[in-house]
Amino acid sequence: MAPQATAVRLADLQRPVGPQLARVPDELRRIVSADSPLLEKVSGYLLRSQGKLFRPTLLFLSNQASGAVDEHGLRLAAIVELIHLATLVHDDSVDHSALRRGQPTVNALFSHQVSVIMGDYLFSRAIRELVAMDDVEPLRILSHVTNEMSMGEMRQLAAYDAVQFTEEEYTVVIRAKTASLFSAACELGARRADATRRRALRAYGDALGLAFQITDDLLDYTGGEAVTGKPSGLDLREHKATLPLIAALPGLSASERRAVEALFAEKEPADEDVARVIGLVRRSGGLEYSRERALECAGRAEAALEELPSSQARDALRDAVVYAVERRR
Amino acid sequence: MAPQATAVRLADLQRPVGPQLARVPDELRRIVSADSPLLEKVSGYLLRSQGKLFRPTLLFLSNQASGAVDEHGLRLAAIVELIHLATLVHDDSVDHSALRRGQPTVNALFSHQVSVIMGDYLFSRAIRELVAMDDVEPLRILSHVTNEMSMGEMRQLAAYDAVQFTEEEYTVVIRAKTASLFSAACELGARRADATRRRALRAYGDALGLAFQITDDLLDYTGGEAVTGKPSGLDLREHKATLPLIAALPGLSASERRAVEALFAEKEPADEDVARVIGLVRRSGGLEYSRERALECAGRAEAALEELPSSQARDALRDAVVYAVERRR
Repeated sequence: MAPQATAVRLADLQRPVGPQLARVPDELRRIVSADSPLLEKVSGYLLRSQGKLFRPTLLFLSNQASGAVDEHGLRLAAIVELIHLATLVHDDSVDHSALRRGQPTVNALFSHQVSVIMGDYLFSRAIRELVAMDDVEPLRILSHVTNEMSMGEMRQLAAYDAVQFTEEEYTVVIRAKTASLFSAACELGARRADATRRRALRAYGDALGLAFQITDDLLDYTGGEAVTGKPSGLDLREHKATLPLIAALPGLSASERRAVEALFAEKEPADEDVARVIGLVRRSGGLEYSRERALECAGRAEAALEELPSSQARDALRDAVVYAVERRR
Repeated sequence: MAPQATAVRLADLQRPVGPQLARVPDELRRIVSADSPLLEKVSGYLLRSQGKLFRPTLLFLSNQASGAVDEHGLRLAAIVELIHLATLVHDDSVDHSALRRGQPTVNALFSHQVSVIMGDYLFSRAIRELVAMDDVEPLRILSHVTNEMSMGEMRQLAAYDAVQFTEEEYTVVIRAKTASLFSAACELGARRADATRRRALRAYGDALGLAFQITDDLLDYTGGEAVTGKPSGLDLREHKATLPLIAALPGLSASERRAVEALFAEKEPADEDVARVIGLVRRSGGLEYSRERALECAGRAEAALEELPSSQARDALRDAVVYAVERRR
């Protein structure tokens, strides 16, 4: 893929499905509403500090691009976003993160306890809503995905050792953690279409998700706090070996490698040690390599779209690929 | 219900379904097996330190007592146990418990991170296995229950204030937290039977679950460490207002009530303060009242069984009621 000269804004690619997206917040509120003040308070907070609705966007665009009508599109889009929200709440609890995109996390604002239970609540609401749809196919897809996501998280935990983690393992993790839900959103959008289009959109979502996550991991090395909404080098601080480091390691000298190992052995690494390892990764080509991998996945996502007829929605899905790899946050 | 003079042992009431129960561990292993060393390690640990399989016991006995054949009984029993395990793992993480029945918890032995993700993993495996059954009814029942359970946990968190918590709210919490899964296990066991038996066993499970949980909460006031497997007074230490305290409060003098409030305001209450409040609860009749409530629920559970024909399994379900309220741990 040749990166576009002009930046794609999220709002641009969301335009073809703007009316549907506008209804997602109310649909989410309907699904999570509960007769419990604390639940209302926490879910109200979560829904107010709402994200970009990127997964619902993909679902609606896939639906439009596949040419099939789906009377449950809104419901499915909200369920997909809800599963995403549930995993964010547990991820922040697992990582003890205090901020997400500049906003306090549930564990920071309420408590660790509330965040564990809230994640369970949101997830079980999503499942309950899926069951109420009386169609086992979305349930099959999403129950598989949620299981994949928890396996990805566990693999990531198990891999808190820079030197051992391979690119192959990294890919397994980000596919499970991120690409699986992207892929499911796209496939669900096309669930009423023929098998070819459905397969194409599933493959598109998978490749897009990989490109998106690699870019995310890159931004952790290249972005500053104001840009990414989280401190640069956070993955290193948390001893998460992502692609930039994995790719850089083979090119490091023995003493440079020891510096990396020392950082991973340090419970709370000093800023200068983090900065030094970021410098090593940059000089050893870890950023370029990761960027190439992201673009390669982006290219595969674009190629998958060729199975679909030309449409405004297909153009927007193409723009989503550019957005995934060119965004600065 | 007139409590029996002789104690009922769990092994006695499990006898009619012994062969089925013996197959649950392997079925659990089949469902949770994963291509990940850490997942295998944690789930292996959980399955080895296996509990009493009380919920599978109820499911199998209900199945036998309802007179209906269920080709998926084993699978459902393992799924119900798996959901129970998933909630235990998250409960221990939420409570920061180090021990459960004398064994280290997952959060203590591995980490808080591992326990959050492990709970998600077990729960999503249970859902995936339910979806694979291709029958939406068990899914409907259990997705409702898991949602209830998380709501119960959240209500309990919200109610960390002794003075405000009413018996009615307490009953809502324990019904959601405990009785809902008991009731689902019994109903699922009878899912191939006619509506009357099914309804009877659902009601039986609900009443049994309430009796079981009230007894559990009583044991926290009356049991010693060696007996309950957890330190006596733990609920008080964690500022959980359960029935013994709720029932005792109205009878306390103003100064006694202030002692309770002081304990609930203390982050780590001293042993003597816990002992003092336990003494107040005892003298104010909180234990007798709770015991009466447990026996009243036990009576309702027994009465529900009258809808079923006489059988060895029905006798065992009756024994389960005695076990629930007479056990010492």
